[in-house]
Amino acid sequence: MAIKNAFYAQSGGVTAVINASACGVIEACRQHSDKIGNLYAGQNGIIGALQENLIDTSKESDAAIAALRHIPGGAFGSCRYKMQDLTDSAEEYERLIEVFKAHNIGYFFYNGGGDSADTCLKVSQISEKMGYPIQAIHIPKTIDNDLPLTDCSPGFGSVAKYVAVSTREASLDIASMAASSTKVFILEVMGRHAGWIAAAGGLAAQRAGDAPHIILFPEIPFVREQFIAKVENTVRERGFCVVVASEGATYADGGLLSGSLSKDAFGHQQLGGVAPALCSMVKHSLGYKYHYAVADYLQRAARHLASKTDVEQAYAVGRGAVEKALQGKNAMMITIERGSDTAYSWSLGEAPLHKVANREKKMPRSFISRDGFGITQKARDYLTPLIVGEDYPPYRHGLPQYPALKNRLVAKKCEYK
Amino acid sequence: MAIKNAFYAQSGGVTAVINASACGVIEACRQHSDKIGNLYAGQNGIIGALQENLIDTSKESDAAIAALRHIPGGAFGSCRYKMQDLTDSAEEYERLIEVFKAHNIGYFFYNGGGDSADTCLKVSQISEKMGYPIQAIHIPKTIDNDLPLTDCSPGFGSVAKYVAVSTREASLDIASMAASSTKVFILEVMGRHAGWIAAAGGLAAQRAGDAPHIILFPEIPFVREQFIAKVENTVRERGFCVVVASEGATYADGGLLSGSLSKDAFGHQQLGGVAPALCSMVKHSLGYKYHYAVADYLQRAARHLASKTDVEQAYAVGRGAVEKALQGKNAMMITIERGSDTAYSWSLGEAPLHKVANREKKMPRSFISRDGFGITQKARDYLTPLIVGEDYPPYRHGLPQYPALKNRLVAKKCEYK
Repeated sequence: MAIKNAFYAQSGGVTAVINASACGVIEACRQHSDKIGNLYAGQNGIIGALQENLIDTSKESDAAIAALRHIPGGAFGSCRYKMQDLTDSAEEYERLIEVFKAHNIGYFFYNGGGDSADTCLKVSQISEKMGYPIQAIHIPKTIDNDLPLTDCSPGFGSVAKYVAVSTREASLDIASMAASSTKVFILEVMGRHAGWIAAAGGLAAQRAGDAPHIILFPEIPFVREQFIAKVENTVRERGFCVVVASEGATYADGGLLSGSLSKDAFGHQQLGGVAPALCSMVKHSLGYKYHYAVADYLQRAARHLASKTDVEQAYAVGRGAVEKALQGKNAMMITIERGSDTAYSWSLGEAPLHKVANREKKMPRSFISRDGFGITQKARDYLTPLIVGEDYPPYRHGLPQYPALKNRLVAKKCEYK
Repeated sequence: MAIKNAFYAQSGGVTAVINASACGVIEACRQHSDKIGNLYAGQNGIIGALQENLIDTSKESDAAIAALRHIPGGAFGSCRYKMQDLTDSAEEYERLIEVFKAHNIGYFFYNGGGDSADTCLKVSQISEKMGYPIQAIHIPKTIDNDLPLTDCSPGFGSVAKYVAVSTREASLDIASMAASSTKVFILEVMGRHAGWIAAAGGLAAQRAGDAPHIILFPEIPFVREQFIAKVENTVRERGFCVVVASEGATYADGGLLSGSLSKDAFGHQQLGGVAPALCSMVKHSLGYKYHYAVADYLQRAARHLASKTDVEQAYAVGRGAVEKALQGKNAMMITIERGSDTAYSWSLGEAPLHKVANREKKMPRSFISRDGFGITQKARDYLTPLIVGEDYPPYRHGLPQYPALKNRLVAKKCEYK
């Protein structure tokens, strides 16, 4: 069999460690240069494949590739782009195969969340249908931690650490001020449908009664009166109240707290504004002085505070994808499997893509306290190992060094589409 | 002369390093136990003195005091409390002297910003008037960096580092997504009247054209049309636009962008909401998808990312205050003086409090680029040394360790007021 080239692309919202996965893929490909030719990366994700904008990773030095391990964002560009529905039109998938064929690409490594698992599966299906063999391997990535069949998703551990640390730090701030000033602090975090990120804020507490006092999960319907009562009680008992609110917190009828109506390319509502909405309820009902923070991109870009466990797992799933491909695997996702609970250990596994695509893993009810405002010991046991370890980037002049790649495009071979 | 006790209090918004100053004060007092008796800390700042809630720092171990160097927030509690105007009523100041007399306090160390410099000065004046000698030394602290007569204010370097690092990281995130998704990212930072914190965001850029592309300073009147034009040009040229906006950005007529009207204890408007206001302008005028973050307390509590230079200066001004007191100084503030510009060096100095109180140091116009949207090389040269060096707290189970003090109160000796 002639040596085939490989294609790698980053998809969806980027993370602090998605480039560590890229690093794993590229380093593994380089080590197996007898079996895999060149690795092309899609410029801006799958759009790069559709438009034949392929980045030649062979132009990057080993040192530049090694540095990807500590650089946040997506080094080759990512995208929010919904492929056409295969049942309606196979046009886009056929275009992918055309480009892959032109560049002798036999391996498709796709690094993303649930939507990209679906795309990855379809690439595998269409390649079979068109008789051009492609091994499609999905590399898990999502800060939302909502991919099924894997113990966790790379990207989550670092955002969890960021949220836990930020909650602990901001709680010390408000505790210092509460006697004469701010009584309520609300941190709005990401997590559209699953409360994993908000849950991580709960790790900031060491003892019962510690901040955060309230966590709002998308899984638990929001009831204004209960929330206000809990804030009031907490301020009375503790002097202040810290809230970690998921951007996806909703009323029982599905209405968002934020009320924002703009939508992204996937038709998902663009969220935001939960914290100000909550503050306005607090002000109106209780009159307390409040502060709020919206972590937004800071939380998922915070490579300066990455979890070492997360960095290692992100790197490992990248390497693992290449190794599985060389074992002949196809249409599967690399997974992370947890060993014993007493002393955390993990190893790589695999899951068939048809069981992964389009399924969201929400927080189990047993991870959420009975009153719906906190996390249980079970949640702590699950979450804690994922944030363990620090893995600081190199600094110069007080700032982390995040050099850009050259990102040279290869010459096009296909007709423009 | 009989040995006198000392009093220390934290005032105003806390910082990532105000406890490093407390550490410096307490360690210096302990080393001079032949000259200074016990050190009492005000519970919740000056309110602790007025209510005779004095924390006995002698109950804390040397290790607990040493740990203050890496703990954010205010370990003894701070406050936003405006003392009565001395010209209208001396009652509150006389109460302070009564409490100080009862506890044999001869040294007043006050750790805060402009308002507390004023209080500190008045304590010195009233003590003279009442014939009870108090040496009042002001220890500078403000993230806003707006204290005059000192090269910088402890607390600022760490928030500057946080804002610069966060801007650099979030910029990599949006750069990865811009081709198909978010085009504009806005980070709202603190800085009520002075743009020092927003300016620090500019350090994220390494070359001309790098993000952040726009900085909004309180010093430069906001003109909507110019802002929108700059956003549009930047997106056209760079594909995306990153904005760092001071919460204090205002229109030429003084109107705040945020439009919030609530006020704090000093009658200052409680700001916030600049980022959503700007995003709404962008959406309305240009239709771009946006994201925004509001750093709020996270920026000033982020001890995990403190500037080593800042930590060292915060500690030094604390120690310096005690040493100056032992030299017989009174009614003065410890300052930080910058040595040569080529290789940064600093030393402690002093400034008389009557020249410090109620004066704000704004960004010089020469630090702001001609178009009003960026910083100059002069600003970079000033800012860079202040964020240099990392000083990580110890971690356990993935989280920084910030233990609380015992904070035992001493028995009251005065009548309740």
